[in-house]
Amino acid sequence: MDFSPDGSQISYAQDNDLFVIDVGDEQIRQLTTDGSATVYNGGLDWVYTEELATRAAQPAYAWSPDGKWFFYMRLDDSDVQSDPTVDYETVPATVTWTRFPTVGSPNPRISLHVLSLTDDAPAQAIPLGTDAEYVLPLFTWTPDGAEVVYMTVNRPQTVLEVKAWNPATGAGRTLLQEMDPTWINEDRYAAPVFLRDGSQFLWLSERDGYMHLYLYDRDGTLVRQVTSGDWMIDTIPSDILTAGHPVAFDTARQAAYMVTTRNTPLERQIDRVDLATGEIQEISSSPGFHAFVLSANGDYLVDQFSDIDTAPATVLLDGDGNEAGVLSPSAVGALTLPAVMRETVELTASDGSTLYAQLVKPAGFDPAKVYPVVVHWYGGTGYQLVSNRYGPTNIFNEVERDTLYTQAGFLVWRLDNRGSFGRGHVFETPIDGALGPVALEDQLVGIDYLRTLPYVDGARIGTDGKSFGGFLTLYGLIHAPDALRCGIAIAGPTDWTYYGTIYTERYMETPEINPEGYATTQLIDKVGELQAAPLLIHGLDDTNVHLQNTINFIQALQEQGKPYLFVPLPNTSHSIKGQNLITVLTDSVQYLEACLLD
Amino acid sequence: MDFSPDGSQISYAQDNDLFVIDVGDEQIRQLTTDGSATVYNGGLDWVYTEELATRAAQPAYAWSPDGKWFFYMRLDDSDVQSDPTVDYETVPATVTWTRFPTVGSPNPRISLHVLSLTDDAPAQAIPLGTDAEYVLPLFTWTPDGAEVVYMTVNRPQTVLEVKAWNPATGAGRTLLQEMDPTWINEDRYAAPVFLRDGSQFLWLSERDGYMHLYLYDRDGTLVRQVTSGDWMIDTIPSDILTAGHPVAFDTARQAAYMVTTRNTPLERQIDRVDLATGEIQEISSSPGFHAFVLSANGDYLVDQFSDIDTAPATVLLDGDGNEAGVLSPSAVGALTLPAVMRETVELTASDGSTLYAQLVKPAGFDPAKVYPVVVHWYGGTGYQLVSNRYGPTNIFNEVERDTLYTQAGFLVWRLDNRGSFGRGHVFETPIDGALGPVALEDQLVGIDYLRTLPYVDGARIGTDGKSFGGFLTLYGLIHAPDALRCGIAIAGPTDWTYYGTIYTERYMETPEINPEGYATTQLIDKVGELQAAPLLIHGLDDTNVHLQNTINFIQALQEQGKPYLFVPLPNTSHSIKGQNLITVLTDSVQYLEACLLD
Repeated sequence: MDFSPDGSQISYAQDNDLFVIDVGDEQIRQLTTDGSATVYNGGLDWVYTEELATRAAQPAYAWSPDGKWFFYMRLDDSDVQSDPTVDYETVPATVTWTRFPTVGSPNPRISLHVLSLTDDAPAQAIPLGTDAEYVLPLFTWTPDGAEVVYMTVNRPQTVLEVKAWNPATGAGRTLLQEMDPTWINEDRYAAPVFLRDGSQFLWLSERDGYMHLYLYDRDGTLVRQVTSGDWMIDTIPSDILTAGHPVAFDTARQAAYMVTTRNTPLERQIDRVDLATGEIQEISSSPGFHAFVLSANGDYLVDQFSDIDTAPATVLLDGDGNEAGVLSPSAVGALTLPAVMRETVELTASDGSTLYAQLVKPAGFDPAKVYPVVVHWYGGTGYQLVSNRYGPTNIFNEVERDTLYTQAGFLVWRLDNRGSFGRGHVFETPIDGALGPVALEDQLVGIDYLRTLPYVDGARIGTDGKSFGGFLTLYGLIHAPDALRCGIAIAGPTDWTYYGTIYTERYMETPEINPEGYATTQLIDKVGELQAAPLLIHGLDDTNVHLQNTINFIQALQEQGKPYLFVPLPNTSHSIKGQNLITVLTDSVQYLEACLLD
Repeated sequence: MDFSPDGSQISYAQDNDLFVIDVGDEQIRQLTTDGSATVYNGGLDWVYTEELATRAAQPAYAWSPDGKWFFYMRLDDSDVQSDPTVDYETVPATVTWTRFPTVGSPNPRISLHVLSLTDDAPAQAIPLGTDAEYVLPLFTWTPDGAEVVYMTVNRPQTVLEVKAWNPATGAGRTLLQEMDPTWINEDRYAAPVFLRDGSQFLWLSERDGYMHLYLYDRDGTLVRQVTSGDWMIDTIPSDILTAGHPVAFDTARQAAYMVTTRNTPLERQIDRVDLATGEIQEISSSPGFHAFVLSANGDYLVDQFSDIDTAPATVLLDGDGNEAGVLSPSAVGALTLPAVMRETVELTASDGSTLYAQLVKPAGFDPAKVYPVVVHWYGGTGYQLVSNRYGPTNIFNEVERDTLYTQAGFLVWRLDNRGSFGRGHVFETPIDGALGPVALEDQLVGIDYLRTLPYVDGARIGTDGKSFGGFLTLYGLIHAPDALRCGIAIAGPTDWTYYGTIYTERYMETPEINPEGYATTQLIDKVGELQAAPLLIHGLDDTNVHLQNTINFIQALQEQGKPYLFVPLPNTSHSIKGQNLITVLTDSVQYLEACLLD
């Protein structure tokens, strides 16, 4: 839902068609009519939502600033494969199908349309080149309303183009092109931000290995790279405040606000960069994680903050970072969790990269004792588990795990291997072509370190991971059986040929192009090398990492006579919460106790 | 497939339509055209195959003896519910739907048709009364070809009618009616056997509590009850030889051959009854289980035989039971299984019924030791686990279990509770209205007995069952927690409202009529009373006892924080064999060892 620029109308999507309702007379105009279960006008399908929506829920359409034009995206999933999930609570059981493009199979057909709101002319389709496999669901209009600006990506995700189209003239042009021989993280790119009456725009690019700010003239001529260095601007903060709008331009100061890792990758500070000089001023002050929204006049910022010991608080800052008020204090005092100690450790990967890790100890830690360790890993792209943030957004329930595992007598260890987020694209590219090997290599650096600690029982190290972390558990148990005594794999891929186009092909291309990459990382054929009995957990309604990953792995285990435990989670998707989270954590503690404390 | 009476034509079904091919000129005539995925001409759907086909695969059509008429059954499953199973090996996973009428829901619509083969007249539909919910897929023509004879059953399965219809005149009549206030076991009824030029027919009925032979005149007048007593004629031998044709009439001797429990319910002997005198002569001699086929001229019988120590052998007998040759010797000598001892025990149920049980001991049994016991039960109708037969047809893999369990250090116990087969209908009717309570009551008589044995550890008794036996395991763990330390439930119902019409309504009516019966035997709501951690095993493609039984039970276990183990069997139906059987037996032994030997 969105208001027209003058506030007189509201646009919305219903049953995959677009409508506009007049706020005054409540008259409804239907803009599209071909919406269906497989045709989405102004909405996104599963894979676009999951892989390209940059964690921000915005409509896949945009009003022109003058209210004359309505731009929208249309997805046609008719050729996209469908994957079933079963609801066992109905009698008989019922099936829900989700359109899911498996690697190498047809993607949604994408098209862009502009409709004139001043007459009844049919919508114009913007001609897209044959290389435009994907269009990012982030759109902007030039401030004069002349052109709509959008971004296309080719199927190998190595070329991203910023394009503009003028609906009045039918003229299109390419503003700029990003190319990367490994891949482009298009899911963390943001729409250009026009400034100075639309004569220039700000652009964020990872082209030098880190996300930095660039200034362009409207015609696509680069004016200058505004920021640089081995740190990055964070364009996908988990905090909802900044999602989709990572840079805010303050016209009065002619400066841009942004969140960066300039101090350390373990923090996010609000910085302000002067466009003319490139000089950067730190706006937020306390060490930790900051996210912000700039007020319309640039006088104030809302600053959402947490650090590893402080649950999120929200304060108001003036433009220079002085606290002007507390909007919402931290809830940390209200929590009565048993205390744990989290220590940051720095190690070095084989290529010289610094690896950040975190060792979690119980409050009553006794260095004279010897502890088993649970390595709680993710290992894939897009996440950073080790940072000075409260419960690292707790996406993998770090707070709950730290509490329960330390109470059960374990230390907990986390390490962000190469490929993980927060360290720039340079820290990711080593994983190109095969998801798994580099992650495990770095994790073994961590485990080797753990074994040097006098208070760690090196023979009693287990692991626990969900999603990519579930894959890494099984990959690790198979390829490093001496390092890991056991492991928990929750909703993990076991064969990347089962997974989706956008995510998988970004790193591995298609199985046709890169058969070795898929073969190397396939787990089902390698269960014979398993020495540990893994705990496998999977939501029965997982539309993301499909149940077949675990079922087919179990079939191979049974054929080889290999031991394992399986916990199915009824009525559960890839998101595990509520009763299912209790089940997972309870069963995990019990499994780890049996394995590491026996 | 079937030959016409004169052998000149072959009838067959293809894609649910019926065809006749002439053996001479190979011309094909298509008899029906409306066959489809839901309309079966001359074939059976899932529930008819499972519940009414008396374990015999015969076509659902019948040529008239003069070859002039073709009678066939038509099933329309359009209104029958569909249940999904998922194939996880394909990418993406694919779904197969099986028409399955859940209790209380619409059954297949049944109709009967007769087609003239001497002209092109359209098929005549035989008018069926509104009470004819089911028609048994067993048909016969009067020897003169004037009438086709069929059997209908009402939905509560309390009235079975034998009817005849004359296609030349369009006249129909009812030959006889069976009524039973509990239920009629229509699945073990056989078609009438006409004799004496069709002036009379033999009929098998359980009306006096045991399956016995009756002689009728063609007009439906009872001539006499030929056999009687507290023993039964076995009309559903697991042996394929006699299936569908349990009584063979020898015209020369004017006598009927059949298999009975006259000696003891633990045996099946071939008997011959003289129709005039009712005098019975035992044809087979060796103690054990016999099944037979009579030669066309009545001079010879094929006798398939086994006893508890002798694997099946097939011999030729003359009409009086003297051995005339060995067709296939017993394979028992070729088997090298470790010896076990199987002892029969007789106990008494609360209503005075004799209960037969079997105690299985290892060859090196030491009465001075104390053994844990595995109660391997089924408990439902239609099966007899305790008998003097080799591996009781091994439908539940008794031989494998006896070997593995005794080798692991357990004794094995089996008891046929009321409701089980081989003892006549009188032994079954106590279970009317609720599947579970009477079975468990009798099984507890057995467990009480076990506890009196000095060599049994009464605190270490576990149980193991599949299908109804899986239900009984969970029912027993919930309702008799003090008797059972643990249990294995393989593909067991957990809520009878998930199961099919014909089987479930036979004993329990619909949930609307008998809500208490369904509530009493529902297990999912009662997991809070579980004290043991069951091992749950289920084939993921089970079209019979659907996966939802186990999944929804697990969901309740998780909500209550109750421990359990789950073994999913990928690509497996209700029939467990090959690799899956190895998985089940291996996991069962391991589970029982952990539970009973710890």
